[in-house]
Amino acid sequence: MNDALVALVAGAGDEPGIVIISGTGSIAYGRNARMEAARAGGWGHIIGDEGSGYWIGREALTAVVRAGDGRGPATSLTEGVLEHFEIDDLPRLKVVVYDRELPRKAVSALGPIVQRAAEHRDQVAMTILEQAAEELALSARSVSDRLGLGGDGLAIVLAGGIFPLVPYLGDALASRLIHRMPGCRVQLLDREPAAGAVHLALAEARGELRLPNYV
Amino acid sequence: MNDALVALVAGAGDEPGIVIISGTGSIAYGRNARMEAARAGGWGHIIGDEGSGYWIGREALTAVVRAGDGRGPATSLTEGVLEHFEIDDLPRLKVVVYDRELPRKAVSALGPIVQRAAEHRDQVAMTILEQAAEELALSARSVSDRLGLGGDGLAIVLAGGIFPLVPYLGDALASRLIHRMPGCRVQLLDREPAAGAVHLALAEARGELRLPNYV
Repeated sequence: MNDALVALVAGAGDEPGIVIISGTGSIAYGRNARMEAARAGGWGHIIGDEGSGYWIGREALTAVVRAGDGRGPATSLTEGVLEHFEIDDLPRLKVVVYDRELPRKAVSALGPIVQRAAEHRDQVAMTILEQAAEELALSARSVSDRLGLGGDGLAIVLAGGIFPLVPYLGDALASRLIHRMPGCRVQLLDREPAAGAVHLALAEARGELRLPNYV
Repeated sequence: MNDALVALVAGAGDEPGIVIISGTGSIAYGRNARMEAARAGGWGHIIGDEGSGYWIGREALTAVVRAGDGRGPATSLTEGVLEHFEIDDLPRLKVVVYDRELPRKAVSALGPIVQRAAEHRDQVAMTILEQAAEELALSARSVSDRLGLGGDGLAIVLAGGIFPLVPYLGDALASRLIHRMPGCRVQLLDREPAAGAVHLALAEARGELRLPNYV
């Protein structure tokens, strides 16, 4: 039993479907009616996890220092980031990011800053969230291709801490998914993933639990 | 006295110039005749250092897992990376990258793999190195703009461990620099940066050392 399966079952029950998780990390996981599973992403913060909260925060910081260097366009993210970390100038950012005990958590916490900037039509912030949505949509598409999923009513569940904090991301992702997998039903997971664990545990108690195999 | 000034002096002596360092990290640093200095990049491995050896290695690994997921184009980097780490399949990559004592060093060591793939015209590898060159050229350009540097004979020194290992990067960078700053002289630092430290120490002994101020 893995976290992604638990979240998928919490949202889609026993039906085939795909879950896209974006939180500290990111992954897409799916299961078809033949009990086959596939995943994409989930490679961790160094070499993968595009579209995760950490990735979004890192891209925001990169955009801010690029703007500071004159290597990239100016962005209101700069003001937001300085305020968030309560610092006066950009060079302090290095101290804030690298000297913290939990640098990844500090970076992941920037999602709402990016959301607010995107709401105010900051082009840099919008581009970061559109790219994140594109990456997550690509992951889901790769899973659906391998599992032969598709067609009307396919459940696609969005789970993970970033979606409630950054609604722009969920909207951008949903529109891509609907465009590429016409007829799919995109839903934000509105209950605890634990609901999926309970469902699976009850199936196991009845001797009916079947875990999917990766293809 | 900082590492970048030392490397610049090792290559350009007392003349105005720019040094672009790409090794574990990356930075561009320059000094003009008015003894003003500026820098760009050097923001560390999480939020900056585009074009560094670590950045190149990370982009290579990201490309490999994207190809594995079906999210990105196939690339000969996959074979090169698996061979380099002596592993048989992609999922082992996570173990290799995250469980090492020195994950950043392991990632930085991939430069020659990317070089070899680019030599064989692997499109993904070529794109990574072209992007790295573009980022480093942007850094240099940002420095030259702020310092009012330019004109015939401006010294641009390429220093750092990645250039001898990945000549493709130096070539791609030099052609961008020559295109954007016509008349500049791009040179690979062919001596130890320590030569610059000696030069500066002798100037100090004569009471003639003037350190530039950041603008």
